[in-house]
Amino acid sequence: MNEVISKPVLDKGWVRLEEYMGADSAVIRAARICYQSESKSDDADIRLVRRLLKSDPKHNTVFEHSVFRFNVKCPIFVARQWMRHRICSYNEKSLRYCTADREYYVPADELPDRETYIQHMEASFDLYEHLVEQGWKKEVARGILGTAVYTEFIWTVNAWSLMNWMEKRLDKSAQWEHAEYARAILEIFHQVMPVTAQAFEEFILVK
Amino acid sequence: MNEVISKPVLDKGWVRLEEYMGADSAVIRAARICYQSESKSDDADIRLVRRLLKSDPKHNTVFEHSVFRFNVKCPIFVARQWMRHRICSYNEKSLRYCTADREYYVPADELPDRETYIQHMEASFDLYEHLVEQGWKKEVARGILGTAVYTEFIWTVNAWSLMNWMEKRLDKSAQWEHAEYARAILEIFHQVMPVTAQAFEEFILVK
Amino acid sequence: MNEVISKPVLDKGWVRLEEYMGADSAVIRAARICYQSESKSDDADIRLVRRLLKSDPKHNTVFEHSVFRFNVKCPIFVARQWMRHRICSYNEKSLRYCTADREYYVPADELPDRETYIQHMEASFDLYEHLVEQGWKKEVARGILGTAVYTEFIWTVNAWSLMNWMEKRLDKSAQWEHAEYARAILEIFHQVMPVTAQAFEEFILVK
Amino acid sequence: MNEVISKPVLDKGWVRLEEYMGADSAVIRAARICYQSESKSDDADIRLVRRLLKSDPKHNTVFEHSVFRFNVKCPIFVARQWMRHRICSYNEKSLRYCTADREYYVPADELPDRETYIQHMEASFDLYEHLVEQGWKKEVARGILGTAVYTEFIWTVNAWSLMNWMEKRLDKSAQWEHAEYARAILEIFHQVMPVTAQAFEEFILVK
Repeated sequence: MNEVISKPVLDKGWVRLEEYMGADSAVIRAARICYQSESKSDDADIRLVRRLLKSDPKHNTVFEHSVFRFNVKCPIFVARQWMRHRICSYNEKSLRYCTADREYYVPADELPDRETYIQHMEASFDLYEHLVEQGWKKEVARGILGTAVYTEFIWTVNAWSLMNWMEKRLDKSAQWEHAEYARAILEIFHQVMPVTAQAFEEFILVK
Repeated sequence: MNEVISKPVLDKGWVRLEEYMGADSAVIRAARICYQSESKSDDADIRLVRRLLKSDPKHNTVFEHSVFRFNVKCPIFVARQWMRHRICSYNEKSLRYCTADREYYVPADELPDRETYIQHMEASFDLYEHLVEQGWKKEVARGILGTAVYTEFIWTVNAWSLMNWMEKRLDKSAQWEHAEYARAILEIFHQVMPVTAQAFEEFILVK
Repeated sequence: MNEVISKPVLDKGWVRLEEYMGADSAVIRAARICYQSESKSDDADIRLVRRLLKSDPKHNTVFEHSVFRFNVKCPIFVARQWMRHRICSYNEKSLRYCTADREYYVPADELPDRETYIQHMEASFDLYEHLVEQGWKKEVARGILGTAVYTEFIWTVNAWSLMNWMEKRLDKSAQWEHAEYARAILEIFHQVMPVTAQAFEEFILVK
Repeated sequence: MNEVISKPVLDKGWVRLEEYMGADSAVIRAARICYQSESKSDDADIRLVRRLLKSDPKHNTVFEHSVFRFNVKCPIFVARQWMRHRICSYNEKSLRYCTADREYYVPADELPDRETYIQHMEASFDLYEHLVEQGWKKEVARGILGTAVYTEFIWTVNAWSLMNWMEKRLDKSAQWEHAEYARAILEIFHQVMPVTAQAFEEFILVK
């Protein structure tokens, strides 16, 4: 078990790398199997990883042997976009079985009617809790809670799929709130898989 | 292009089969390729399909050549569960680009405070529309809208993955609102892929 | 069931489009769902498809609602590379249950010792048939048959995954024999999904 | 990096667990996220894992957070079946870039004409090496080498997908040579993920 690396995101969220395996060395291992070649030096290994990511079409499979498990806390509207990415595994806090915690995203900006927004979210939780007390099933009562409410999930993803997610969520067309998560995870990616992360920035993100 | 088969679900939702290819004949085609055998009779073909689904472990790949495209309208909380199924393709109405329609699920039962629930949902839409007018981005303002709000998506799925979804969503542990969609789609499945649907009921659902 | 489009490939192989659904119209349908917009004209639809494929990062999901079923006959060494592509479905002739047909790939070029190659392949089949007669299991006796032997399979694949396969197999680094199959399928792709095929050539292949 | 666990399989093959993450604890972690519950005792955790695997329909996603990387050496005909399993990642020794080693599977039984089989395999390698010397591309010359030839690959797979592979390859309908690999990996599975492995034997394999 590796040490957990944690980053706060938005007003109440986070990303935490709980465990990973392989990292840059798994990419080199996989590539060396294809060519039945030996590592000659660290420099040669670094050049190999960079060439694999830069080449067109890219050798995606060698990046799939490096795997990460993150714990994420984010607004439901971010989680909904996130879970559209399918080449990975999720387990999420269930509002069928758990009572929702009174935690929701509040935009940081000086937006008009920000207080009204907060009051409405509070009223939603008041009503939600009342309906559950009145005997409504939690899975139906949750229908009034907005998608600004925070959720939490476990995400296991390989490096190739992770880069695909970052590419899409760091694009200028992505929602700012989601991009904040991608920026936090990119920092963690640099810490644990530095050669690939560097090549990803140079060859994929700058396009 | 096949004729659209449509079923209403819940108070304002639906499932619509827009197009499909293969059906039972694709299963037979795929199995006959493996064994390089010829169809001898309709009865032999039916027995073949039933044996493939009944056998343990099952021959999932032969059922993957039959593909369906559905159009679905359902509450967001149903869509969230639905999109956890990954071996299929989705495109959903985006509340980043579209303004939300004032349509939300209202439970049919004689629940206490049902009117309060409706009033709160209406107030949510009032505030949502107000915030958008005040210049909030739609993608942020939507955070106050509950997951009872209806969404719409296109779903392309092969028969194997469809049966997996139905098995999970027709299970007694599934949320009733989601099971209503599974029941409607099971009816359509019987109409367009009758041999497989019959075997699915007998060998998978009854377990 | 659509009409089968067939192309010969290599000395004894082929690709055949047996059935498909959606084509360009499914891409437009899926994109229109996201934006809840109406088709205004054919020209607008064409521009939409082109923009979706050209944009970076690309909107892969809208291309997944168009699905093809091919029948392919190719040497085993081509099939082995082909089946590394995982976002699609295969069913292949099984040499556990079927006796291998005496059909193998012979390179067209004026290679030295081409006759020796042919004689050796014939000798392999002689021995294979002898071993099976002697009571060897077909699944073990096949071990002496080279990967130049032809196999046959059914391939169901969506347009996005198909383009990914073509991009990799039309690359200059691909094996020539495999690229021949990709060129044949690209021609069929142009026939049945012309707008996407054109955009694919312009925005993806030329890179 | 964990210690490598290695098992010999067939006459010249092996399976080696090079690295893994999560194991039983990742299943528990994922399940506890869903219910936002705390581990009370080891016994409660074991009961939880067993219930998740036994329930019908099964909770596959919680088993996906445990991931393994194996190194496998096996005959090509086994690798061909193996790589039909798609929810995992492979990188294989390439006979486009590497010269084939003279290593092939010889059935252990007292089969008639076993010596003739060996002589033919040796003759195949003689001709292969000759053709390569004559200037044939390795990727074409390999066409005469039988699928009994050994190959080597890296396989990264999560526990759910691994159990699916074992279920199919330990079935009485599976080829004996492939089942030998499944039996070796089942032993390793017991060593590193004992609670899940035990439940797998009891609830899945015995059916």
